[in-house]
Amino acid sequence: MKHPLFILGCLVLISAKLCAQSYAIIIHGGAGNGLVPSNYSEEQKAGFHSALNRALMVGDSALAAETPAVEVVSLVIQILENDSLFNAGRGAVLTYEGKASLDASIMDGSNLEAGAVAGLSCIKNPITAALTVMKNSPHVLLSGPDADQFAQMHGSECVDPDYFLIQSHVNTIIKIRDRQRKLDSIKDHKMGTVGCVVRDRAGNIAAGTSTGGMMAKRYGRIGDSPIIGAGTYANNASLGVSCTGHGEFFIRNVIAYQLSARYLYLKEGSQVAADYMIHDLLSGQNAFGGLIGIDAEGKFFYSFNTKGMLRGFKREGQAAETYIFALEEK
Amino acid sequence: MKHPLFILGCLVLISAKLCAQSYAIIIHGGAGNGLVPSNYSEEQKAGFHSALNRALMVGDSALAAETPAVEVVSLVIQILENDSLFNAGRGAVLTYEGKASLDASIMDGSNLEAGAVAGLSCIKNPITAALTVMKNSPHVLLSGPDADQFAQMHGSECVDPDYFLIQSHVNTIIKIRDRQRKLDSIKDHKMGTVGCVVRDRAGNIAAGTSTGGMMAKRYGRIGDSPIIGAGTYANNASLGVSCTGHGEFFIRNVIAYQLSARYLYLKEGSQVAADYMIHDLLSGQNAFGGLIGIDAEGKFFYSFNTKGMLRGFKREGQAAETYIFALEEK
Repeated sequence: MKHPLFILGCLVLISAKLCAQSYAIIIHGGAGNGLVPSNYSEEQKAGFHSALNRALMVGDSALAAETPAVEVVSLVIQILENDSLFNAGRGAVLTYEGKASLDASIMDGSNLEAGAVAGLSCIKNPITAALTVMKNSPHVLLSGPDADQFAQMHGSECVDPDYFLIQSHVNTIIKIRDRQRKLDSIKDHKMGTVGCVVRDRAGNIAAGTSTGGMMAKRYGRIGDSPIIGAGTYANNASLGVSCTGHGEFFIRNVIAYQLSARYLYLKEGSQVAADYMIHDLLSGQNAFGGLIGIDAEGKFFYSFNTKGMLRGFKREGQAAETYIFALEEK
Repeated sequence: MKHPLFILGCLVLISAKLCAQSYAIIIHGGAGNGLVPSNYSEEQKAGFHSALNRALMVGDSALAAETPAVEVVSLVIQILENDSLFNAGRGAVLTYEGKASLDASIMDGSNLEAGAVAGLSCIKNPITAALTVMKNSPHVLLSGPDADQFAQMHGSECVDPDYFLIQSHVNTIIKIRDRQRKLDSIKDHKMGTVGCVVRDRAGNIAAGTSTGGMMAKRYGRIGDSPIIGAGTYANNASLGVSCTGHGEFFIRNVIAYQLSARYLYLKEGSQVAADYMIHDLLSGQNAFGGLIGIDAEGKFFYSFNTKGMLRGFKREGQAAETYIFALEEK
C-alpha cells in the first residue's frame, strides 16, 4: 500500500499535466514588397526557411524544458539577431552615418512588465538588453549610449560596432550618400525586423521585437519596435503580438495594443482583428507591414499587406511551418 | 434688393456659425503627493493659479482667432514650458549628470498625425520640436542630439543648456550625488509634467505633453510623455488626452490609447473610463499620476490618484477654472 501523501502527490502531478496547455511559438523575420519568388534563388529561399526553422527549434526545446515564455522570446530572437539575413543585430540596416542603431522590446503578458531599448550601438543582442531593462531597472525604455552601458553593466555582451556591418548594407549607404540612387530605388529594401510571440504550458504569453530600423535613418529616429503598444504587446488576458513594417504608422495607430483592445473589448477574433488592422486600417493609410501573434485561447494569427513576410510557427508536438511569400500556406 | 449671391453668402456664414461648436481647452501642470495645501504659501498657490490662467488665456485667444487645435496646444504648452514652476522647458528636473533632458509629443486628432522628441538638450520649447517632427519629417519620434539639430534646422530656438537650470534642481542633484539624501526623501518631488488638450470650433481635437522626466534619471531613460498612446493621444472620433505621473506604468498600460479604446469600443463615458484607468488600474498597481482630456462630445474629463494635480479648463464664453489640490472643485 502506497503512502497517502505519495498518492496525493501523484494526483497533483497528473492534474497539473492535464491542466497544462500545449505550448506554441510564432516568429517573423520582417515583411516587404521585395519578398516575391522571382527575387530569390532556391538557395536563398532555403536559407530563409532554414533560419526560421532553427529559431523555432530553439524555442521548441526551451519550451519543452519549461523555460518561461519571456525567456524563450529572448532566446529565439537572439538566434534571429545573430543571423545576418535579418534586419536585427548582425545584418541590421545602417543609419545615414553608416552605423547600426538597434532597437528592441520585450513584454511579459503574465504581469505586464516590459523592457525596451532604442539606439544601441554595441550590444550584440539587443533583445537581451530589453530583457535586462525589464528585470534590472525600474524603467521600461532606455536609449542611446547610456543604454548600451546599462545593458553591459548587467551582463549583455558588447561587441565592436563593426560586428553589425555587412558589406551590402555598407555599399547601400555609400550609394545613398553619394546620391547615386534614391532610397526608393534600392532593391534590397525589405523590412527584416524580427519578432517572436510565445505561449508556454502555463498559458503565459510573451512577445518581443528587434530591429535595425529604417535604412539610412537620421536624427535619432525611433520606430515602433521599442514602443510597447506600438510594435510589441503581450497580455495573458488577450494576446501577444509583434509587428513589422512602416513603424511611424504602427505608432500613430498604436497597432499592437489596438489589436489587444479589439480582441478584449470588441470580442473580435484575433485573426479578424489582425486582418482589420493590416488590410483595412493600415492599407487605408497606404502603410505597409505585418504582424504575428498568439491569443489567450492559444490560436495563432498573422496578417500582412506586403508581397511577403518571413514567418514560421510551431505548436507542441506538431511540425514547424515556415513561409516567405503571400498565399503559400497549404 | 440684395443680390442673390449676397443672400446665399449670408446664409452660408450663418449656418457655419450655427454648426460651429464652442471651443474648449484643458491643461495640467503635473500631479504629485507633495501637492497638499500645507506645503505651499498663499503666494505660491496664487502663483500656480496665475500661471495656469495665463496659459488658458493664451489658448482662449488663439481659439477665438480660429487657430487650429494642434497649433493652440503648442502655443499653450510653450507658456507652461517657459514658466519655471513646471517640470518642462525651463525649470525641468535634471538628469543624474545635472542636465535637462527634455521630452515632448503632440498629436492631431483630425488625421492621427503625431510628432515627438526624446532627450533634447538645447531646444527652448520642446513642444515646438515635436510639432516640427510632425510637420516636417516622415517620422513620429526623434531622439537625442540629432533631434535637437533637426528641430533647430526647422526653426525651433536653441538655447544654452544652462537656460533650463533652476538652482533648487541643481542643489537637489548635488545632494543626490553626494548621497546625503535618497531621492525618496527629497521634498520637492512633484511630477510637474505639463499637458494640454484642445477642441476647436471645427470639432478637431489635439493633445500634447512636455516634460523633463524623472529627477536624477539615468541611462537615457524615456518615459511616457513622448510616447504616442502612452502619455499623449488624440482622435476626433474618441478623445484627446495628456497624462502625467509614473511614466513606466503609463507605458506598460498604454494609458492614453487604452482610455480612447474604452470610450470607443466599450462605450464607457470619458470620465468613467478616466476614473477606471487611474483609480482601478493604476492604483491597483501602486502607480500614481493623473490625466486630462476632452472627448468627442466636447466633455472635459480628468482624474488623478495623487494628493493634487495642477489643472485648469475653460470653455468658449465661460470663465476659466483652475485647481491645485484634490476635491477643490465647487
